[in-house]
Parts: sequence; structure tokens; C-alpha cells
Amino acid sequence: MSADFVAASPVRSAIEVEVVSMQGNAFSARDDRVAVEQALEIRVAGADPVITMRTPGHDRELAAGLLLSEGLVRHADDFHTLAQLIDQPDVIQVVLAGEGTEQGQVLQRSSLSTSACGVCGKSKLNLESMRGLPPLPEGPHVSAELLSALPARLRQRQAVFDRTGGLHAAALFSLQGELEAVREDVGRHNAMDKLNGWALLEQRLPLSDRIVLLSGRASFELIQKCVMARATIVCAISAPSSYAVALAEEAGITLVGFLREGRFNIYSNPERILRAPALAQGA
Amino acid sequence: MSADFVAASPVRSAIEVEVVSMQGNAFSARDDRVAVEQALEIRVAGADPVITMRTPGHDRELAAGLLLSEGLVRHADDFHTLAQLIDQPDVIQVVLAGEGTEQGQVLQRSSLSTSACGVCGKSKLNLESMRGLPPLPEGPHVSAELLSALPARLRQRQAVFDRTGGLHAAALFSLQGELEAVREDVGRHNAMDKLNGWALLEQRLPLSDRIVLLSGRASFELIQKCVMARATIVCAISAPSSYAVALAEEAGITLVGFLREGRFNIYSNPERILRAPALAQGA
Repeated sequence: MSADFVAASPVRSAIEVEVVSMQGNAFSARDDRVAVEQALEIRVAGADPVITMRTPGHDRELAAGLLLSEGLVRHADDFHTLAQLIDQPDVIQVVLAGEGTEQGQVLQRSSLSTSACGVCGKSKLNLESMRGLPPLPEGPHVSAELLSALPARLRQRQAVFDRTGGLHAAALFSLQGELEAVREDVGRHNAMDKLNGWALLEQRLPLSDRIVLLSGRASFELIQKCVMARATIVCAISAPSSYAVALAEEAGITLVGFLREGRFNIYSNPERILRAPALAQGA
Repeated sequence: MSADFVAASPVRSAIEVEVVSMQGNAFSARDDRVAVEQALEIRVAGADPVITMRTPGHDRELAAGLLLSEGLVRHADDFHTLAQLIDQPDVIQVVLAGEGTEQGQVLQRSSLSTSACGVCGKSKLNLESMRGLPPLPEGPHVSAELLSALPARLRQRQAVFDRTGGLHAAALFSLQGELEAVREDVGRHNAMDKLNGWALLEQRLPLSDRIVLLSGRASFELIQKCVMARATIVCAISAPSSYAVALAEEAGITLVGFLREGRFNIYSNPERILRAPALAQGA
């Protein structure tokens, strides 16, 4: 391997964000740490660039491991160049030793067959698809009490999840807290696609007068799917990523995370969550 | 939408597999349910087919939701055809209303930019890359006691994970249970790629005399990455999918799941796990 590797500037795998934290029906503003999610472009000489969402850090290793998985490299010697430049920390440049160009074309062809992906490569195009959407309404408004009751209702219905422990779920609730639909899948993005597809085919779009609940973490791509379905309130049982928070903020979505055991954090647009116990109200 | 939808035969989102269950240092054979993971092909007229790994069920909704995310449809009326045939339950055929062909080309282009994906679309090509690998060695052998101690050691080192709750980890242990490397990412496939890339660049491949530990679930793609790194013993804190189990079985990998709280299940090739407490032994 050539010695043209230049160390990237220090990377951050987590950042602090301001949240509104709810616990015991009391709200407080505080800082919370979220994992960074950011696009990395891998440029293999002779191939179209590959884009993946990732947490910054060990990016050259990520590129090397990805090419190993593709069967394009087996040894460190198979790289002529594997470089990350200081001024472009989100780009990895790869030149394979030997017949690099030809192998790059294999990677390019391989990329062709992938697509319905979770945490990957759609950032540019999906940002495109989100353009031109009208702003979301200011409402609806729901109470903290109502939100806190939702996870138990999802668990009751997740019969398959209980038996395998291997499925993610995406659920849709009315503003009164009634469970309208649940979809499950080994892929969390698939579960959300199934829920959105149901809503689309049943003519229930937009989802702006409902509540979306995700059984796990909230990534950029899950929020992108919620944007396309015009959801206003999106709750996750577990942590959101940095990019999920940023996109929810920009799109006007109220993003709730760590919704479990009677507490939660609001990461964006907290106005839709009412502090006092109250019945749900329309927009 | 045209009425040419034909209902698919009943689908199974979970199947039973035989496992060796370890609890309180006692081993027993029993059945366990795992979530089904299987390839779905979405054929949009005028575009290359798109392949995604998914849990069967609600497959038309999955296709509809995916096309909504891509910005290709907004209403049910945007579909001319959205069909799943009885004899091809793993294929969805789509014809878009209006300028369907042109829109299909948009999907095709969009697929181009995706790739470094988690639960998606690589099944065909990755199976290709796995061909011709020599069989794994019969060993190494490790004790149940040693395996049970690993999750706590991973947690100790997962400083970032503890603070955000949003990162997956992939770790490498020696046969003596020493933690050699940990990589973390919002995407579990990225964490494994980073670990493999580290091993490749540090000339530590193959991983056949080590233990891989995954902080979450084990999907097909994670096991495929372990196959490429020649891992022999792969442990997951949470559940494996059906395809992960099948691939581990075929590749000769010992796949351990639900490794937590002093218990675990062995899903494939259990011979490498020693029942009596013993020091780790070489292959």
C-alpha cells in the first residue's frame, strides 16, 4: 500500500443536543448525547462512488471491510491506495493494486443490485424527493400521558416479536391512542415501508393527524420515510441518531426518543406535546 | 389500480429451528423460533429489479412504501399494477400509472447510488463472493463459561454506546477471552465492516482462531461478512434471523445467539462449544 494516507482530523462519534426531557410528568430542558450519523463517500478508481451512512471514525477500515465483503480484496496488499484526506474527512479514496479499474467495475455492478436499504446510500436522492413538500401543520397536540401509554399497547400486539426477539415494528396510533396498524420486519426500514405502504394503499395518507411509533432506534432514513408520509409526531422506543434529529427539526416533525418506562425525550419541535394531562386535540 | 392482484399463499414470519440451549452450565436441545429473513424482488416496469432482504408478509405494502420513500408515488392511483403471484411469492410486479417507464428509470438510477448496505440487496452477489472459500477448520474449541463472560467485557469498553444508546458494536476476542478490538457505528453492518477492515489492514485475517461478538441481532449480511473474514465462532447478544442461521450452518460457522445473563443458544455447528468449564483450546 502506498504511504499517502493522511490522518483525518479528530472525529466525533457522538454530539450533544438540547432536548426536553419528560419524567414523572415533569418537563425539563437538558442536554443529551446522540450518536453521529453522517454520509461517507467511498471512491474506488474506475467505479461510481458508493455512499453509506455511518458514524465517523475508522473510516478507512470501514472501506476496507466493505471491499472485503464484496470479495474485491483479501489482503492489505490488495490496496494500492486507501486514503482519507484532512480536508475531505467524509471521502475515502481507493485504488486497488493490480487490475484496479476492472475490479472497480465489479463494485459498480454490485451496487446496481442493492437498493431497498436501511442505513445506507440514499441521502442525496432522498433529500431530492423531500423537496417541494408543503410545511407540516402546527398541530396536532397530544399529552405526555397519552404518549407514555403507547409502548405497552404496541408490545401487546407484537406477538411475533415476543416469540423471536428478532423483529422490528412500526406502528400507527390515532390521536386518542388507538393502535391502527402494526408492521414488523427484520429490517426496521422495511417495517416503516410496510406501514407507509399500507397507509398509501388504504388512502390514509398523509399521517399528519396520527402518531408513528418505532420499536427501536430512529435513523435518518426512518425519519425520511416519515417525512414522505407527512407524519407530524414520531416516537422511538430507543435512541435517535444525530441526522435523524437534524432532519426532524428541519422537516417540522416532533421527534420523541427513549419512550419507555414512563419517560421520554423530545428532540425536535416539542410544541405538539402537551405538558398537562389532557385529551388529544386536533391540529 | 388494476385488479390483477392475486393473494400469495400464507406467509411465515417466524420458523422453528433446533438449538442447543445453555443455561446454568447445563446444555439441552430444544426448538427456538427465529424471524424469517428472505429476499424479495421488486420489479418496476422499465427499471432493473430491486432486491431487498425482508420478513415475508405485507410485501405489496413494502413495495408501495419503498416507492413512496423514493418519491415515485404519492397515491394508490399512481399504481397501474402492484401484483404478487401465487407461484412467485418473493416477487412483486409493479407498473406505474402514467409515465411508468420513465419513472422506473428514476428508480434504477436511484439504486445506483446505494450500496454499503445493511439488511439489503446483496444476497446474490455476496453468495457469489463466498464461493470457492476453503472449508473452515473443525476447531477452535471454547468453553461455555468463557463465552458467558464476553458481553460484560464488551460493555465495559463501549464507552460511547453507554452515553448515546445509539451505536451497535462488533468486537473481536482471543480464545482466552481477551478483547482485541471493538468497532462501533449507528449501522451494525458498518461496525462489522470496520472490525473486518481493521483485521485486514493489521494482517490479522483469517479470524478463525478468534471469537466475534455482535452487540445486537445477527442478520444474513452480518454472517456473510463473518464468512468473508473466515470467522469460526460468532456470538450475538440478541436474536439471529432464519437466513443468518442457514448461512452459518452451511459455512461451518458456530452461531451463538441471545448470549446474555449467563445463558445462550447455539444455532449451528455446536461442536466448538465445550460443555465442561475448560480453558480455551486451539484448533
